[in-house]
Amino acid sequence: MNNALESNLKFYLDRCLPRHGFSEVYRYAVFPAGKLFRPAIALAAFKDAGGLENTPREHSIWPFMTALEIHHAYTLVHDDLPAMDDDDMRRERPATHKAFGEWQAILAGDGLAVASFSLLSQMNHPQASFLIKVAAHALGPKGLIHGQALDLSQEMTTSFEKLLLTHELKTARLIQLALLGGHVLAQNDFKTPEYKKAWRLGRAIGVTFQLLDDLGELTDSEISSHEKDVNPWLTRPEDCAKTTIELLQKIDLFAGKHVKIMLKDYFQKTNTKLIAGEKNLQQHILAKDILLPVMTILQRLS
Amino acid sequence: MNNALESNLKFYLDRCLPRHGFSEVYRYAVFPAGKLFRPAIALAAFKDAGGLENTPREHSIWPFMTALEIHHAYTLVHDDLPAMDDDDMRRERPATHKAFGEWQAILAGDGLAVASFSLLSQMNHPQASFLIKVAAHALGPKGLIHGQALDLSQEMTTSFEKLLLTHELKTARLIQLALLGGHVLAQNDFKTPEYKKAWRLGRAIGVTFQLLDDLGELTDSEISSHEKDVNPWLTRPEDCAKTTIELLQKIDLFAGKHVKIMLKDYFQKTNTKLIAGEKNLQQHILAKDILLPVMTILQRLS
Repeated sequence: MNNALESNLKFYLDRCLPRHGFSEVYRYAVFPAGKLFRPAIALAAFKDAGGLENTPREHSIWPFMTALEIHHAYTLVHDDLPAMDDDDMRRERPATHKAFGEWQAILAGDGLAVASFSLLSQMNHPQASFLIKVAAHALGPKGLIHGQALDLSQEMTTSFEKLLLTHELKTARLIQLALLGGHVLAQNDFKTPEYKKAWRLGRAIGVTFQLLDDLGELTDSEISSHEKDVNPWLTRPEDCAKTTIELLQKIDLFAGKHVKIMLKDYFQKTNTKLIAGEKNLQQHILAKDILLPVMTILQRLS
Repeated sequence: MNNALESNLKFYLDRCLPRHGFSEVYRYAVFPAGKLFRPAIALAAFKDAGGLENTPREHSIWPFMTALEIHHAYTLVHDDLPAMDDDDMRRERPATHKAFGEWQAILAGDGLAVASFSLLSQMNHPQASFLIKVAAHALGPKGLIHGQALDLSQEMTTSFEKLLLTHELKTARLIQLALLGGHVLAQNDFKTPEYKKAWRLGRAIGVTFQLLDDLGELTDSEISSHEKDVNPWLTRPEDCAKTTIELLQKIDLFAGKHVKIMLKDYFQKTNTKLIAGEKNLQQHILAKDILLPVMTILQRLS
């Protein structure tokens, strides 16, 4: 499966890149590909909405999937910069700015961001304009980038609502776009209720992932002082548990067959990790009885 | 005139920005507006192609013009970063990263880049999809950003062809898009030869501006050692003069009435500057007789 996704990514990315020189920076930023979660969930949503699994390469779903992944790659390259999160490593290799230099990483990020719109503009579908409009809005100053600003300014830590908003903008927007696009591209007509369902499901998945990620950080016996400052499960365990459960229920209710299969794998891994670290979790999170219902529903979705 | 352009810019930019907080970084990066050359030349091309001067605000030309200016603003914000050109000042004020910080400048640049596509996606015109496709290609990894990479990697200094290519990609692409868009949005049908003319004219304008800019740098009696290293009029005066003359002739031949009026102002200023600094120019550029024909044609276009 991932081989098909990766070869698709290569094919469409290559069409956007210059032949020589600077191309290697772009390729380094994108390959070897990670989990390809965003293209994969777009394809799953496409299938759930009746899209044909073996669509020809010319079908709009393929450039769309590539656009999602390289837009994601751009955000990672910029996030890792010294002035941003200052991460030297990414996917167990030097981050792009470490491997090539800072201006190269800034430009490669810029280039991938613009190239993602180039790919979106190559969609040939009655709803292509609509999707580009949604994408630019969801990923722009009011969307994903606002989430990054809330994170870096630490405004996200000022309230639980701000935390959820940050996760929604920074993480969920791209997943919402993936689900919406997969859905829209599988069909030719425009069904508003379906479209809203895809958008809400994407929000639930994005925010849940972040909350489960935060929870996973507490499975170690020692946790860093940074984690102690920012992990919401330490300061607001009830809010976190309640929201996670609600969102997991929403996912269970709204996700189609293929999307559920995709998520199952992730939930399984998280579940295994939480069970293995349960003793540490109980030690860090003092409100002990809140964990059981989270783990029960997670188990059910695994 | 510029008041109308600036109020249009405010109106459409505001629609893309979040209400609070981080918005001030975006506004700082865009306002007070500079010469608004790109929107102005798009509007001039629009009029030359038969577009109505007083089109309603809803007309696609307005979001298009804003998209050009904020895309330009994004490139300036990123270009000024310490890892790029490392410029502390821009338009006689601290650069965005100096006024707000580096991560703020990186994110604001990213946000403006995405917002420019959001504005393009708001065009409501039969050729909107075509224009978005051209824009994303012209401004992406094979276009504007490749120009920035050629510049920062100093590959542009390795040959005269590379220098022209860099100017074409880094400076002309956005002007080409402005002219093409102004032209296309004034009409409803698709006329390939007209398009090509607009594209070539944009290339001529962008590259000429850079060459005249370089020439203007030599009107001072003292020139910096950096300028001595990079100014092509010092190392290849004949090539520079020949190309500038050819491109000015092309502009004279292909530009419509409104575009010519716009350029006249720029050529006048350049001409005045060159005349005032002629003695210094002659002193720096040893091939003395090459300047006269450049200044003659410039005079004619002023």
